[in-house]
Amino acid sequence: MKRYRNGGIWDFEHQVPLSTNRPVILGLDGGTTSTVCICMPIMPLSEPLPDPLPVLARALAGCSNHNSVGETAARETLEEVMADALSKSGSNRSAVRAVCLAVSGVNHPTDQQRILSWLRDIFPCQVKLYVRNDAVAALASGTMGKLHGCVLIAGTGTIAYGFTEDGREARAAGAGPVLGDWGSGYGIAAQALTAVIRAHDGRGPHTMLTSTILQTLDLSSADEVIGWTYADPSWARIAALVPVVVSCAEAGDEVANKILKEAVQELAISVKAVVQRLGLCGADGKNYFPLVMVGGVLEANQRWDIGKEVMNFISKDYSGALPIRPKVEPAVGAALLALNEEKDGKEISGADAMPLLDALALAKAVRRLMAKAMHYLLL
Amino acid sequence: MKRYRNGGIWDFEHQVPLSTNRPVILGLDGGTTSTVCICMPIMPLSEPLPDPLPVLARALAGCSNHNSVGETAARETLEEVMADALSKSGSNRSAVRAVCLAVSGVNHPTDQQRILSWLRDIFPCQVKLYVRNDAVAALASGTMGKLHGCVLIAGTGTIAYGFTEDGREARAAGAGPVLGDWGSGYGIAAQALTAVIRAHDGRGPHTMLTSTILQTLDLSSADEVIGWTYADPSWARIAALVPVVVSCAEAGDEVANKILKEAVQELAISVKAVVQRLGLCGADGKNYFPLVMVGGVLEANQRWDIGKEVMNFISKDYSGALPIRPKVEPAVGAALLALNEEKDGKEISGADAMPLLDALALAKAVRRLMAKAMHYLLL
Repeated sequence: MKRYRNGGIWDFEHQVPLSTNRPVILGLDGGTTSTVCICMPIMPLSEPLPDPLPVLARALAGCSNHNSVGETAARETLEEVMADALSKSGSNRSAVRAVCLAVSGVNHPTDQQRILSWLRDIFPCQVKLYVRNDAVAALASGTMGKLHGCVLIAGTGTIAYGFTEDGREARAAGAGPVLGDWGSGYGIAAQALTAVIRAHDGRGPHTMLTSTILQTLDLSSADEVIGWTYADPSWARIAALVPVVVSCAEAGDEVANKILKEAVQELAISVKAVVQRLGLCGADGKNYFPLVMVGGVLEANQRWDIGKEVMNFISKDYSGALPIRPKVEPAVGAALLALNEEKDGKEISGADAMPLLDALALAKAVRRLMAKAMHYLLL
Repeated sequence: MKRYRNGGIWDFEHQVPLSTNRPVILGLDGGTTSTVCICMPIMPLSEPLPDPLPVLARALAGCSNHNSVGETAARETLEEVMADALSKSGSNRSAVRAVCLAVSGVNHPTDQQRILSWLRDIFPCQVKLYVRNDAVAALASGTMGKLHGCVLIAGTGTIAYGFTEDGREARAAGAGPVLGDWGSGYGIAAQALTAVIRAHDGRGPHTMLTSTILQTLDLSSADEVIGWTYADPSWARIAALVPVVVSCAEAGDEVANKILKEAVQELAISVKAVVQRLGLCGADGKNYFPLVMVGGVLEANQRWDIGKEVMNFISKDYSGALPIRPKVEPAVGAALLALNEEKDGKEISGADAMPLLDALALAKAVRRLMAKAMHYLLL
């Protein structure tokens, strides 16, 4: 266990009195915009879980998607945010029993292995380590640690990820802006910037997006949009224009409306692809399953509510889809997964993490959750 | 005039005997994939120009689009390639009378000013300097230095750029991959990679692109395409997959065919936007104008000939479009522009660079050029 990595990230550990060092777990949600680390004490996985959950500390950092910022920067961000959470909770690495690191950009077992190997470099060998795509933590944040159903994330990026009760999993999208994540915040905003260019050079219709975006970015002509776009490769910076697109659509701009409608279709197609491959809706297409919806793009707007439109699309085919807006953030979902695993001592999978429930019991459990958090829900 | 910049780029100048230092001009074509610098002697702008043109030296370097590789790297590449061309021609900076630097990524007067200011840092104040978008040099390479008509470039990137006889200019596309250059080599290849991901996760139809691209990239699964895509941000690396898409389309793959058909439409739309805004086709839509076609994407293929399909689309609306495949490379076009300017001593514009010809005379001149280079032409 290193003590003096990266210019003293772990220096604080000397000051932690051993007496207060009670066992903890870490849950991390590493996205393209920000990274959150939650430190929670080990507790019995009773039903129901304490409300509010006993979070000891929460630390925040920047992007940790290695596809976006590169391996070294991603790793440094993750290490710093864990150190920060432990320091804030008055704890240190010797108190950690399990870590669930849920980061976007984990698309392949080799990604998982690479991250696991440097994570093992930070923590002693008895600490249980789990590396997952950040979508898994988002699902767990909606189902309070149970891996069943489908999650749709639409923030800067987008992904749909699902688990069956017996542990099979599938995903759609989440391949980043170059590879067709057109329903993401980045996708929506890039389409809007493109519409400005096309209107300017005569390839596309006039749109209100031009004046609104130029004003927002403090630019004087559409030509300058090109320089602005490539001046900084951060995906989150582009995605931050989504509210502008929504406001233009709400004001009746046809181009903006078309962009949002296509995004809705794309997001719904991602969910449908996952539900179909896993058979989450059962043979008759009517089985209940939780559909956790997360991310800025799905937040309710004045009139143009992207999340609601996506849900309308999905409900037409799958009447059993039960929309859930999580009460807790994805990093807490990651912490709950780590807690499950610490208890079971097995590697995370759908079957390990959740008692087998039949569809009806699950639907009831989900409805209870929904009733508890009415104001967070779509229905 | 600096002698020891960037670790001795200009060191070679000490060895150039002054007696052989006859006046020269430099023409540069700086693209997203490569940069070419041509050194030519000052010569009378007689009609016709000598064939072949008296090129003293040609130097080659990598990408110099500042939007793709950043300002510092772009600048270093441009400086090195100019030094290389002068060194190869047994010349030095004191022999240079004019430089035409045509680089992709020049989209706004501020881009032009920034590049001019550091170019002035390299050359003495009596050297005439011209900075243009690389499309201008490509047009000049097809019209042998005359700025009239429209050029369509489709290589890694794409742009349409046009000039009227009286010096008005317009462009369409050329805004890079984020901003809707869907007909570019990058655009075509990114769509193909996206099709592989969508087929894999259930959002799109099965396509031959999957096996062909995985084999080409030596990957074992579609998941690995994500890591491959983001491992290196170079646009040229993605665009290099275009031949794979063409071969799949020729083998009858529907997804690949759809991608190419959409690219053809996009490229034709860019040309039409420029022709329409400049009125190049005259009031009745039938005036002759040169349409210079440049770049790997427009090269003839076995059965699927993207350039020919684009031309078919354009001819439907503008029967006077005279397709030209240049005999010389764009860097030579840039050198001819520099030559024109050195002679005139004025800043480049359409009116300055070209004697006013009526449409018929122009059409005849173009047809002469075409007859001279039949095997380079589309018709």
